[in-house]
Amino acid sequence: MSLVVQKYGGTSVGTIERIRNVASRVARTYDDGNDVVVVVSAMAGETNRLVALANEMCEFPSDREYDVLVSTGEQVTIALLSMCLQSMGYNAKSYLGSQIPMLTDNAHAKARIKAIEDKKIREDLKNGTIVIVAGFQGIDADGNVTTLGRGGSDTSAVAVAAALKADVCEIYTDVDGVYTTDPRMVPAARKIEKISYEEMLEMASLGAKVLQIRSVEFAKKYGVVIHVRSSFDDKPGTLVMKEDEEMETVLVSGIAFNKDETKISIFGVPDHPGIAAQIFSPLSHANITVDMIIQNVSSDGATDMTFTVPKADFKKALKIVEEVAKEIGARGVSSDDSIAKISIIGVGMRSHSGIASKMFQTLAQERVNIQMISTSEIKVSCVIDAKYTELAVRVLHEAFGLSLETDDEE
Amino acid sequence: MSLVVQKYGGTSVGTIERIRNVASRVARTYDDGNDVVVVVSAMAGETNRLVALANEMCEFPSDREYDVLVSTGEQVTIALLSMCLQSMGYNAKSYLGSQIPMLTDNAHAKARIKAIEDKKIREDLKNGTIVIVAGFQGIDADGNVTTLGRGGSDTSAVAVAAALKADVCEIYTDVDGVYTTDPRMVPAARKIEKISYEEMLEMASLGAKVLQIRSVEFAKKYGVVIHVRSSFDDKPGTLVMKEDEEMETVLVSGIAFNKDETKISIFGVPDHPGIAAQIFSPLSHANITVDMIIQNVSSDGATDMTFTVPKADFKKALKIVEEVAKEIGARGVSSDDSIAKISIIGVGMRSHSGIASKMFQTLAQERVNIQMISTSEIKVSCVIDAKYTELAVRVLHEAFGLSLETDDEE
Repeated sequence: MSLVVQKYGGTSVGTIERIRNVASRVARTYDDGNDVVVVVSAMAGETNRLVALANEMCEFPSDREYDVLVSTGEQVTIALLSMCLQSMGYNAKSYLGSQIPMLTDNAHAKARIKAIEDKKIREDLKNGTIVIVAGFQGIDADGNVTTLGRGGSDTSAVAVAAALKADVCEIYTDVDGVYTTDPRMVPAARKIEKISYEEMLEMASLGAKVLQIRSVEFAKKYGVVIHVRSSFDDKPGTLVMKEDEEMETVLVSGIAFNKDETKISIFGVPDHPGIAAQIFSPLSHANITVDMIIQNVSSDGATDMTFTVPKADFKKALKIVEEVAKEIGARGVSSDDSIAKISIIGVGMRSHSGIASKMFQTLAQERVNIQMISTSEIKVSCVIDAKYTELAVRVLHEAFGLSLETDDEE
Repeated sequence: MSLVVQKYGGTSVGTIERIRNVASRVARTYDDGNDVVVVVSAMAGETNRLVALANEMCEFPSDREYDVLVSTGEQVTIALLSMCLQSMGYNAKSYLGSQIPMLTDNAHAKARIKAIEDKKIREDLKNGTIVIVAGFQGIDADGNVTTLGRGGSDTSAVAVAAALKADVCEIYTDVDGVYTTDPRMVPAARKIEKISYEEMLEMASLGAKVLQIRSVEFAKKYGVVIHVRSSFDDKPGTLVMKEDEEMETVLVSGIAFNKDETKISIFGVPDHPGIAAQIFSPLSHANITVDMIIQNVSSDGATDMTFTVPKADFKKALKIVEEVAKEIGARGVSSDDSIAKISIIGVGMRSHSGIASKMFQTLAQERVNIQMISTSEIKVSCVIDAKYTELAVRVLHEAFGLSLETDDEE
């Protein structure tokens, strides 16, 4: 007998009929002899409806009241799912964040989980009750309703799994797992059987949006095994778990890409201590997240600096940088809003050399120019012209042997 | 400076625009130097939408989960109203039933309020904060969400007013007060300036559905002054309060009528102890509420018994009564589903004789036959043929001088 935590996203519980399907799957898991805790999101569209109400009410809704409002979405789902399971003859009981309690800090709309009381849930499980938990929501030390931010239900589920030391945390979604790259771009993309937390973090932050990144950090911290799978079929999906020996034999696990960044360069920056802070502090104050930063070796007491910012912040960032450039006496500023960042990810590259150079060669063969390079222990990222995105992803996917298996199958 | 509790019903908060209007009125009350606590219902239609979801999910939704579901309606309203007041520059803070806490028993879907913790609310008021409370909902001793039953927000408001010893509990609704009778039937009906709890209880239970009857009982018990008024204009409405000398000078305060009852008679009932119980126990077991019961003086060891039951239960009640009649050896059963109960209500009649006989004379003059009579200290009710309802109400309204003032004004 295992303790299974299952999380169903908004699409999976989007209609009464789909909630019935979820109930059937939950019941099947229970009938197989498992203890089951279910974490659910709001019905698809519901959170958007509530956010629209808030925005119609006023321009800047207060975070505290925003959380009171949007947390009703999950509350509706837990009640409906519990009713459904009860009508099927099962014992089921719903829990709000405040009833568990799921204690968070008081950062409304982006709260972080601090502690989960597992006593009531354990008693229910002992009595054969299926426990239904509202995702996304918690309560702070003063009893205020909090929410974890968009996609927070993944984190709720992993946190519940960690608190209960569950055997597995199944995340049901509308895709059937994590792929070696986006299958819409590369049809030969292959579902990954298992992937390490570290690789998943790089995949997620680089644009493969299957799991909320914080949930993966949480899972890594507490050693929770996540099983990402589809709520529309019974096939196994992708296990996100601690790195094992098998994983290390794979040099590259996946190819991620991100077309949502832009590039800004400052030329002839006087090279003295504190200059980087002078450039990036104003961006940080404007709440602009800078991703890659490249600084060339200095020559003649001046250096060039290039960095990327999200497309949404491009104009604002450019304006700030042009002002800063004047202040510090830089030679000039250039920018490019049509770039793509392509990354190869794999824990195996830690112990193998030549992975980066193979990437560069592969791109060179296709005459794709590399504009920026950034590396970590398990990742190599290159910024290229956006128009080569598909070509680059496809040839890299091929070059690192990721397409082979599905090619054979097809 | 007063402490004012205001309650706004579903129609008053039915749209974002109407919530803005409510916020303006709340702000005005605050600006006038009052401490303000606001109790709100769900936006019009919202509770029905949620109940429909539950009914679509399963035939018999569990009461516990039903309460979790429907209580989200008020949660949405408190958040939106707080946001609106905040955007207008006021300090406002919302409270769920569980956050106050508003402690109830555990009778889900029809819970009764047991205690209200006023500490947090008082602190907020002291800090100049406008407090927004979710009506209709509470929490039981085990932390389960409970609701008070349809229309329960009136009771929430009166209970909050009682706990805070508020100067007045203003109930805003879509009518502008309590009338001497239904103005749709008698255009000369007059708005009552003030009415005693006892009269209001008789009015409410007799079909003048302005206030939830439990809220009036609550107000009477704790001496809360209720001000029933319209949320669409600024005119004073009706005060529901402790009887005063002025009220006693009015012999009849209002005329109520109820066309939703039916009449069943049993003839030749053997007149021995326990016979009433034999007749009414089966009805009570079938959850049928019996209203008026008339038993004539016995002759020849047999008596006739007549009583009224709600229209919705008529067929079921008749079937039960016919079986019972056979069992106890009664002579026969007759019934009538087209009756009306007309009542005159007034605390003044306690100290005046001749009120009942004036009612009978007035009806007799119009040749309206009286089928049943029942009296209490402050009420006389007559059952008549339903087709004479309007005529009876109109002539009684005239006879007891209720129309005069408005007639003069018009």
